[in-house]
Amino acid sequence: MDYRIEKDTMGEVKVPADKYWGAQTERSRNNFKIGAPASMPKEIVEGFAYLKKAAAYANHDLGVLPVEKRDAIGQVCDEILAGKLNDQFPLVIWQTGSGTQSNMNVNEVVANRAQVLAGNKIGEGEPVLKANDDVNKSQSSNDTFPTGMHIAAYKMVIETTIPGVEQLRDTLEAKSKAFMNVVKIGRTHLMDATPLTLGQEFSGYVAQLNYGLKALKNTLEHLSQLALGGTAVGTGLNTPEGYDVKVAEYIAEFTGLPFVTAENKFEALAAHDAIVESHGALKQLAVALNKIANDVRMLASGPRSSIGEILIPENEPGSSIMPGKVNPTQCEAITMVCTQVMGNDVAITVGGTQGHYELNVFKPVMAANFLHSARLIGDACVSFDAHCVSGIEPNHERITELVNNSLMLVTALNTKIGYYKAAEIAQTAHKNGTTLKEEAVRLGYVSAEDFDAWVKPEDMVGNLK
Amino acid sequence: MDYRIEKDTMGEVKVPADKYWGAQTERSRNNFKIGAPASMPKEIVEGFAYLKKAAAYANHDLGVLPVEKRDAIGQVCDEILAGKLNDQFPLVIWQTGSGTQSNMNVNEVVANRAQVLAGNKIGEGEPVLKANDDVNKSQSSNDTFPTGMHIAAYKMVIETTIPGVEQLRDTLEAKSKAFMNVVKIGRTHLMDATPLTLGQEFSGYVAQLNYGLKALKNTLEHLSQLALGGTAVGTGLNTPEGYDVKVAEYIAEFTGLPFVTAENKFEALAAHDAIVESHGALKQLAVALNKIANDVRMLASGPRSSIGEILIPENEPGSSIMPGKVNPTQCEAITMVCTQVMGNDVAITVGGTQGHYELNVFKPVMAANFLHSARLIGDACVSFDAHCVSGIEPNHERITELVNNSLMLVTALNTKIGYYKAAEIAQTAHKNGTTLKEEAVRLGYVSAEDFDAWVKPEDMVGNLK
Amino acid sequence: MDYRIEKDTMGEVKVPADKYWGAQTERSRNNFKIGAPASMPKEIVEGFAYLKKAAAYANHDLGVLPVEKRDAIGQVCDEILAGKLNDQFPLVIWQTGSGTQSNMNVNEVVANRAQVLAGNKIGEGEPVLKANDDVNKSQSSNDTFPTGMHIAAYKMVIETTIPGVEQLRDTLEAKSKAFMNVVKIGRTHLMDATPLTLGQEFSGYVAQLNYGLKALKNTLEHLSQLALGGTAVGTGLNTPEGYDVKVAEYIAEFTGLPFVTAENKFEALAAHDAIVESHGALKQLAVALNKIANDVRMLASGPRSSIGEILIPENEPGSSIMPGKVNPTQCEAITMVCTQVMGNDVAITVGGTQGHYELNVFKPVMAANFLHSARLIGDACVSFDAHCVSGIEPNHERITELVNNSLMLVTALNTKIGYYKAAEIAQTAHKNGTTLKEEAVRLGYVSAEDFDAWVKPEDMVGNLK
Amino acid sequence: MDYRIEKDTMGEVKVPADKYWGAQTERSRNNFKIGAPASMPKEIVEGFAYLKKAAAYANHDLGVLPVEKRDAIGQVCDEILAGKLNDQFPLVIWQTGSGTQSNMNVNEVVANRAQVLAGNKIGEGEPVLKANDDVNKSQSSNDTFPTGMHIAAYKMVIETTIPGVEQLRDTLEAKSKAFMNVVKIGRTHLMDATPLTLGQEFSGYVAQLNYGLKALKNTLEHLSQLALGGTAVGTGLNTPEGYDVKVAEYIAEFTGLPFVTAENKFEALAAHDAIVESHGALKQLAVALNKIANDVRMLASGPRSSIGEILIPENEPGSSIMPGKVNPTQCEAITMVCTQVMGNDVAITVGGTQGHYELNVFKPVMAANFLHSARLIGDACVSFDAHCVSGIEPNHERITELVNNSLMLVTALNTKIGYYKAAEIAQTAHKNGTTLKEEAVRLGYVSAEDFDAWVKPEDMVGNLK
Repeated sequence: MDYRIEKDTMGEVKVPADKYWGAQTERSRNNFKIGAPASMPKEIVEGFAYLKKAAAYANHDLGVLPVEKRDAIGQVCDEILAGKLNDQFPLVIWQTGSGTQSNMNVNEVVANRAQVLAGNKIGEGEPVLKANDDVNKSQSSNDTFPTGMHIAAYKMVIETTIPGVEQLRDTLEAKSKAFMNVVKIGRTHLMDATPLTLGQEFSGYVAQLNYGLKALKNTLEHLSQLALGGTAVGTGLNTPEGYDVKVAEYIAEFTGLPFVTAENKFEALAAHDAIVESHGALKQLAVALNKIANDVRMLASGPRSSIGEILIPENEPGSSIMPGKVNPTQCEAITMVCTQVMGNDVAITVGGTQGHYELNVFKPVMAANFLHSARLIGDACVSFDAHCVSGIEPNHERITELVNNSLMLVTALNTKIGYYKAAEIAQTAHKNGTTLKEEAVRLGYVSAEDFDAWVKPEDMVGNLK
Repeated sequence: MDYRIEKDTMGEVKVPADKYWGAQTERSRNNFKIGAPASMPKEIVEGFAYLKKAAAYANHDLGVLPVEKRDAIGQVCDEILAGKLNDQFPLVIWQTGSGTQSNMNVNEVVANRAQVLAGNKIGEGEPVLKANDDVNKSQSSNDTFPTGMHIAAYKMVIETTIPGVEQLRDTLEAKSKAFMNVVKIGRTHLMDATPLTLGQEFSGYVAQLNYGLKALKNTLEHLSQLALGGTAVGTGLNTPEGYDVKVAEYIAEFTGLPFVTAENKFEALAAHDAIVESHGALKQLAVALNKIANDVRMLASGPRSSIGEILIPENEPGSSIMPGKVNPTQCEAITMVCTQVMGNDVAITVGGTQGHYELNVFKPVMAANFLHSARLIGDACVSFDAHCVSGIEPNHERITELVNNSLMLVTALNTKIGYYKAAEIAQTAHKNGTTLKEEAVRLGYVSAEDFDAWVKPEDMVGNLK
Repeated sequence: MDYRIEKDTMGEVKVPADKYWGAQTERSRNNFKIGAPASMPKEIVEGFAYLKKAAAYANHDLGVLPVEKRDAIGQVCDEILAGKLNDQFPLVIWQTGSGTQSNMNVNEVVANRAQVLAGNKIGEGEPVLKANDDVNKSQSSNDTFPTGMHIAAYKMVIETTIPGVEQLRDTLEAKSKAFMNVVKIGRTHLMDATPLTLGQEFSGYVAQLNYGLKALKNTLEHLSQLALGGTAVGTGLNTPEGYDVKVAEYIAEFTGLPFVTAENKFEALAAHDAIVESHGALKQLAVALNKIANDVRMLASGPRSSIGEILIPENEPGSSIMPGKVNPTQCEAITMVCTQVMGNDVAITVGGTQGHYELNVFKPVMAANFLHSARLIGDACVSFDAHCVSGIEPNHERITELVNNSLMLVTALNTKIGYYKAAEIAQTAHKNGTTLKEEAVRLGYVSAEDFDAWVKPEDMVGNLK
Repeated sequence: MDYRIEKDTMGEVKVPADKYWGAQTERSRNNFKIGAPASMPKEIVEGFAYLKKAAAYANHDLGVLPVEKRDAIGQVCDEILAGKLNDQFPLVIWQTGSGTQSNMNVNEVVANRAQVLAGNKIGEGEPVLKANDDVNKSQSSNDTFPTGMHIAAYKMVIETTIPGVEQLRDTLEAKSKAFMNVVKIGRTHLMDATPLTLGQEFSGYVAQLNYGLKALKNTLEHLSQLALGGTAVGTGLNTPEGYDVKVAEYIAEFTGLPFVTAENKFEALAAHDAIVESHGALKQLAVALNKIANDVRMLASGPRSSIGEILIPENEPGSSIMPGKVNPTQCEAITMVCTQVMGNDVAITVGGTQGHYELNVFKPVMAANFLHSARLIGDACVSFDAHCVSGIEPNHERITELVNNSLMLVTALNTKIGYYKAAEIAQTAHKNGTTLKEEAVRLGYVSAEDFDAWVKPEDMVGNLK
């Protein structure tokens, strides 16, 4: 391979000739061969592109960066955001915990790419931009990485997670309304219980997702706060007056999202409780989705030897050995996602506890786990909706058969003959394999007419909204 | 021991003669010998007392319970709340997952105690109250247990967690103000960095707790919603019209807390995402507290051979073998609490995922873990505040020595001579064991006068608010 | 209340007159009001009693403690082990992370109780024993607490966990053999699949528990290693030559368990990977038990509108509102236990990561969570066995109905007519609501005779051992 | 793009013309757009290649597959193992929980590639191999996926995890020996304690890794057991007699690893406790590595204003804003890895609990998390060793300064003058800022000569082995 020589404060490094990155990126690439290459999420790189451009604009406005440098920086950042430089970011999650080398990776790529855009070869001619003094001006890894992390996390939540969950929620809500009069057996402890309607059952799912969405949105304010302007330890050393507010305004403008400068920069560098907080809400959504998907597959279980109350789409052959088998595969995919999110929550929580003094150095692992969860939940909701929930239909025949069988219809008699006699009827019917009505009449507790009048599943489901 | 015979729908059971509980409690006591006896939190029992009384009042208002029964129920519930019947609740967490037997425990104790208060012996005379038909009227375990759980959780958060965290936050805020001009070395990656003030450092702790408190308060609305009125499966079977709203109003009145009826009763029985949500915020607080307590003990480490920048109270001899040793024991207690809360969060999350159909049957384990965390955090904050934080003082001499030593003061030169030359100064001083000033001058990058003018720790800490 | 004055190196403290503990215990009691009082597990106190006695014997043998002191210490330790001094240990888990005050609690109680046993009043007369110089001789909290923790953990595993799991395993094995010829439908993805026997299904549970037991036993060697002899930092300062080996021998003798001195005392103080390791195996058992209990309740679900293939004992009325309802309550109790163990594992893991330099100061939280899990698993297995598994019976009629219904019997035709034609038969029968045989013949792929010969559930279950 | 038409039992699907995969792979690709494409670990695909080849050989030996088909299958599997078909496996983790479509992906690729190798075009001419009837012969997804998962997991542990940990352990052991006489201050509770040597301190790290390695190796026997031969539900339906043992022998031969057939196939399909078990040991290693890496960075903290007792290699500029800063970046990378492993453990545990009846459908998420952890630990240990631990050197000057300062040297006086007087000396010196010797003599407890004779750090470290 072809190389060129790059330098940093520690000396010379050989860098692949066809890459824009410089000495520090290359050091990191060589020093951290841990897991798959280039594992640092591209959303983080994009977050950096937004903030580097915003910093250049703020620096210019505040008189510390000439317009030519501002525009040179902005131009490369736009290229990064357009995906034109995707192969220039080779670093991994498992590097320094401040993400310093990923910050330098962006600084170096911006500086060298600007040199080329200006018609020079890298390392030749007067430098258009210096990586540390210009591209990184008024910045530190310690405030840029958390800023990039918040940008990436907020965008992913807004663009992927929430729309995905809302799409699923909307379908469940439509199903809930469509199934509102389908009376079916209830089940508690997995055991036959008093009836409800299928629409009522689904309304619980809608409520869970609505609570989850609300909880997630409650966390966005904290996540919208950006560390930028704190520089090395939160004091804002080496930044011009007013920079922190202005740079956040530019980021808000460039992303179209309501970012603001963090109230307290010391917290913003040393703790990532905003990530812990928002991921807590993602975990809550995982809890909700797990319940919903489990119910769907259990209600659909069969086709002949289990519950079978609902029908779900048949999307692919289910078995390589059992011909004709169809499985609730979308439920499985989304519950695996929920499982992953629960694990990611622990990684984020543990990382969140380990800030020391002025810096938390678990930033990359926290960012990566957050983005993983946020994307998986959004994607999985869309998939679950499109390939499963939107096609759910009641199996009316089966539903009717099961609800009419149920011994728990006896509960309707509690207020007529008391809990004890009602229990005796149910227990006797259970023992004898008979119907409630037979035993109610035989025991002399209820007349046949009263039984028919009092024990109607459709009267036991309350008000249907 | 002396016994009497109690009956339920399954037959006769021998019950200790001096206890008010009945057949179902005794069955549970015998069938679930798991872990320590009577482990069901007393706060849950109190939650039941509130709701049983409220149900009696609502039932009476709605015409389904006579005033005498209402008052008989209310009287015993008041006794429970006054702690007079504490030895009547022998059941464990590890019972049926709906907490049915704890509900019945309360029903039975209320019925039998009322019998005694009416001047009868238990099991003799006309029953004043029937456990299922009167005390449990318009109720099911499935809506009472989550209601009791929300009452208990909300009360604990309001009465113990939040006041404890706020007390600690207030002290940290006062310390932050008091220490705002104490310039000290910053540390990132545990390594010497640019300076800040001790007050700034503490302000980050205040911010963390404020965010945590806000996050916790955000969850209270969901937690304030009560399942009561859903009965067996969420349909409200066997409840009078308007009961759910009214019973929540009574609970709000009796507790003085803003409880309301749940928007969706199916969700309220089948999922406990409100518990997951609120505990997520408790976990966030644990993350914050862990960071704070770790910093305190590291800043206080020494006394002679470590950091030693702050002094903390000496509360007890620290070692049974090393004479004169004093340890940061309050930091240790609270970080152990944080560790427990992180574990509890996983238990609650896993329990929360496992609702099936119309019921989640992990209620007791979720309730117990929640109450454990909420209390531990509140108590630990008070203890940490009283015995550690409120006594923190700066070790001025040590702070000054360490900040003046730091090579990272060189950062102030970045904007004067550029990052590269500044790095050379720092690296040379590090290698030679000299001062920055010596090397700056020797290398010819800065004059001695400029150095003194430019490199002042107190000028590097930004605006002090 | 009545008080007496006790002293330690920090000064005077008022102690309840009727208690044996001294100044340091009282300081801790006052300084750590976190959670329920006296939460430090009594098994830890017992572990201390074993090790204090053993230390006294080893010290005597090695010439540094007179026989009278040895015997005085031994006598009080025996009283502790006999449960006679249970109210003398008021401290909580949430104290110093080395458990120093719990060590001092034992030292103080032993010293003061010995004084009383010698006919003196506490604090009067020549001290029979000094808490630090005699009872704690050749010891430090830093090596005693982990020793007490290992003794307690090992004993609990041997005496409660393993016997409980083995009892359950034995019953499942007996059931597996008894049900070995009961052919039933298999289910994969919760969907109907090819048949197996109920005994085969149960054999999987037996295998899980056997693997879990083996994994747990694999960890015991590490857990049997005792820190005692390391004293303050692992060097064994202030211990006589040969003490570590000898004291472990005495502990082994007194407990009847194969304890040995730790290979590396630095590890034994600074890390508690043995606790992490053994609890990992407890967590594996929780995973296994969760699967088993879930299957049992799903197989037993019904009685009329779900699977209903097995019958489980009816132990208590299942519902306060639904008369006659019976629920799989033992399954619920044990799965809640599994949930707790999963949470505890995270607490232990996090605590285990946070040793620093020569000491891990998360000892009490790790010990408490370990003992909690170990006891809960043992107890829950016994309860699950006694009140559920031992009473499981097949519902033969239901089992036969469901297996004969299954479309997945078509798999037997794969090797005769190929996967694609077999799939066509199953899909057509599914669509038409017909039987496999009808469609097989109608499609002309199999004759009626061949179908009957080839598709026999009992021939599809392989070798029955 | 160019397409061809592929068929499965559900009908026709358009597939990219240049790919070997067939209808079922394409369905899965379209139905599961969740997260990054092709996320199913390549190690799983390789595991499938081993097992498909082994199955072909076993099938041939047992007379159910002709030699031409065996060799055709073997040839393509060898191509997969040689990495020649890497772009043929586009599926994601988040698919059906049995991994059925990944099994079919391999089946389809093998069949179509064999067709091409035979000189045909895909879909034309007599099929050389049928995906289900030949490539998948005597197999089901339900036994192949767990087999592939065990092969992949075992290989990763043997080839990456263990060698990585052992390399680090060996270096630590060499350092421990090299530093065995470097007397330094001990620290407990982060506070100054009695001395030990740096080599002793490092010996604790070696012990931790040795225990972790032993624990990991203890789990390999379970992991070596393969499900293959169980087919759909564990009964081995549609397999020839003796197949399970033989196919495991071939896998052992082809991989060079000691795989055997699972003792109980029902367990092997329905539970993945072997994965839970082995990952538990990976988590234990993470706990150990976290402690070690934390210690290293704390001991190296400085360079001037913290501990600074050891020197670690300076690998890259540490800060984009602070010139000359060097950070413990390798410690940060590996502790982030440990954090991830802790999270992965929860995902695996939760997935492991959720097997139902005859199948656990969390296979892909469990496999992916396991392989992630196993690789990260191995890679991170190598990186930590090469770029940090192997370059650690003591900072002798600093070490000597700190140990001589320590008040805890007073502990050596315990056995001479008792704990109380020793404590008084230490406390007085602490208060007065004097030396122990000054106060010892001034208080009249020890003569200057005795002090010098008794209080020698080098005599307080025990036997050095």
